[in-house]
Amino acid sequence: MNGEEKRREQTSAQSAASDGSPRRPEWADGESASSYVHAERPPAPKRIVRRKERSVDEYVQGVLAGDRTMLAQAITLVESNAARHIDLAQHVLHALLPHVGRSIRIGITGVPGAGKSTFIEAFGTFLCEQGHRVAVLAVDPTSSLTGGSILGDKTRMETLARHPLAFIRPSPSGGALGGVHRKTRETMMLCEAAGYDIILVETVGVGQSEFVVRGMVDFFLLLALTGAGDELQGMKRGIMELVDAIVINKADGDNKEKAKAAQTEYNQFLHYLRPATPGWETKAYTCSALLGEGIADMWRVIETFVATTKRSGVFFDRRRQQQKDWMHAMIKEYIETRFFTDPIVKEKLPMLENSVISGAKPVTAAVKELIEAYERKRSGEL
Amino acid sequence: MNGEEKRREQTSAQSAASDGSPRRPEWADGESASSYVHAERPPAPKRIVRRKERSVDEYVQGVLAGDRTMLAQAITLVESNAARHIDLAQHVLHALLPHVGRSIRIGITGVPGAGKSTFIEAFGTFLCEQGHRVAVLAVDPTSSLTGGSILGDKTRMETLARHPLAFIRPSPSGGALGGVHRKTRETMMLCEAAGYDIILVETVGVGQSEFVVRGMVDFFLLLALTGAGDELQGMKRGIMELVDAIVINKADGDNKEKAKAAQTEYNQFLHYLRPATPGWETKAYTCSALLGEGIADMWRVIETFVATTKRSGVFFDRRRQQQKDWMHAMIKEYIETRFFTDPIVKEKLPMLENSVISGAKPVTAAVKELIEAYERKRSGEL
Repeated sequence: MNGEEKRREQTSAQSAASDGSPRRPEWADGESASSYVHAERPPAPKRIVRRKERSVDEYVQGVLAGDRTMLAQAITLVESNAARHIDLAQHVLHALLPHVGRSIRIGITGVPGAGKSTFIEAFGTFLCEQGHRVAVLAVDPTSSLTGGSILGDKTRMETLARHPLAFIRPSPSGGALGGVHRKTRETMMLCEAAGYDIILVETVGVGQSEFVVRGMVDFFLLLALTGAGDELQGMKRGIMELVDAIVINKADGDNKEKAKAAQTEYNQFLHYLRPATPGWETKAYTCSALLGEGIADMWRVIETFVATTKRSGVFFDRRRQQQKDWMHAMIKEYIETRFFTDPIVKEKLPMLENSVISGAKPVTAAVKELIEAYERKRSGEL
Repeated sequence: MNGEEKRREQTSAQSAASDGSPRRPEWADGESASSYVHAERPPAPKRIVRRKERSVDEYVQGVLAGDRTMLAQAITLVESNAARHIDLAQHVLHALLPHVGRSIRIGITGVPGAGKSTFIEAFGTFLCEQGHRVAVLAVDPTSSLTGGSILGDKTRMETLARHPLAFIRPSPSGGALGGVHRKTRETMMLCEAAGYDIILVETVGVGQSEFVVRGMVDFFLLLALTGAGDELQGMKRGIMELVDAIVINKADGDNKEKAKAAQTEYNQFLHYLRPATPGWETKAYTCSALLGEGIADMWRVIETFVATTKRSGVFFDRRRQQQKDWMHAMIKEYIETRFFTDPIVKEKLPMLENSVISGAKPVTAAVKELIEAYERKRSGEL
């Protein structure tokens, strides 16, 4: 278990502490939290106490009871890359499978500065006030590079973090992008088993993360700003065709008129695109997360979406397809990793790439050479 | 060598025959052409004569001399999936490498009915009249399923097919999509070595073929029709962000005004998108392939594009990146094929998929089970 995992448990434990569930800070059990690098807060103090390993049953019962500390620990378990944890985690997930899937999974994306935290704070708090139990997760491929996390600092969502019906989990870090996404999906399953009926998955939209989040949610929301024309030009390719709604945030004060104009412009643009979900028309809306305006309307849109797609079967078809796609993505990730991390491949690939780029070798010949070297080495090994 | 390969050689030989180069029909050398299924024409007569295999040097010299029959035979060689042909083909390509790359590679896509054949006929003939040597290839992932080919019937481009400076090659068929694309790339190399300085690559845009063609050309053109709004809605996701120009064909007679309106509409839409090529603004144009109007203008656009991107270096950067991407795509295709065609994987995958979809097994556990079975079997084998 490394410092980052500690740090995430710590954050979870803090939110757990606010709702009356067991409040012993989890990092107290860990080896060290000081190796965690975070820009905005000092490292947590070192506490060197080793926690005894829990059994599958302890995890399962704890999660099903909705015990937030146990949920946080179970998430740390599925996030672990240690072989013995992976096995244990799979047993826990297996036992929880019958309790998984009964939530509405909502993805939220938008450029930095679009106000994702403020929106999630307002939207999540609204949902909690309606009696929903809301879990907030994040897919943040950058976290493994920077050591930071888009949700690492929970002061971004103070009200929501304190709400007894909310659970906020910073994004997992470390490992390949695919690994991060596996962790997010399995964390989602744990949250569902713990009784959270709305899961919000936030992403900054770096690299392929938008496609990955689209592949794990029922409804995908793009948070946009005014000045649609300018913003659209800088927008990621294809993002508009991935989402089920666009909400233009910061529609308040002087900005209100501009937001309405942007809404019109987005709607004109959306008219040309194929919607992301069959039988559903992607439209633009406005809101002010700051003033709490348009938040309830957004929820009504999502409720209508869920009702419509459940009636047509699209909701269930998509979930089935998502499971299958996820499985294939994991298989491909595995076989590619096995190949590209092989020492002989790592040694030969850069040279072969160079001879292909310089025109010294045809691509097919270079590929053949690489694969033959790999196969020869493997048959010698076994 | 199968019937389809015969049929393609036959077509090439016919076009070869029209320009005064050696005119012995190539299918005369083959085993059988009758197994080739084509909707519009009766099967060619059977000729059972086996051709002796040529040497690397014969292919190389023949291609470099611009001998169209030898070029056609070399293409058949790179299209072959037989192990001994693959080796021979790689030697031929290796020897030709110094003569490869000196062409402008232009991709052309559009929905069926957009008039791709008429456009290529008019555009290709125009280029030949300017003294260019034009090769027309096709990427058609459907051909392996239907046995047909988008370019199978050369009566679609009669004038061009007869032009001494043109070479038309129907799309390769058989094998995986990736295989078809490898063949098209290597065919492109052969055509370049044979002195063709403009390569037109046509695609119907089924499946991933648009992305694959974008990955092998310098300039990518979308052929569109009037009624942009309606058509845009049915258009493939992201296609507008892949192309360097949109040309609205059939801008003639009553349709002329509508074409102009569509041009305006497309340009408005394009304004919001990020262009496919850095430093180049993708715009909409009109033409009438039927009347030959706007054809010369289109060529001027492409010449400007080439000059601009060569000056900025984008042209060369893209080509280098394309080589690298192609190499990685081939590697991934190889390792995936090896895994998914393994008998143990083929046996276990459908069951595991079902248990994942029905919620009986967590995805990670199912993937683990599959991979362990595969690894066990492989280590037992070797």
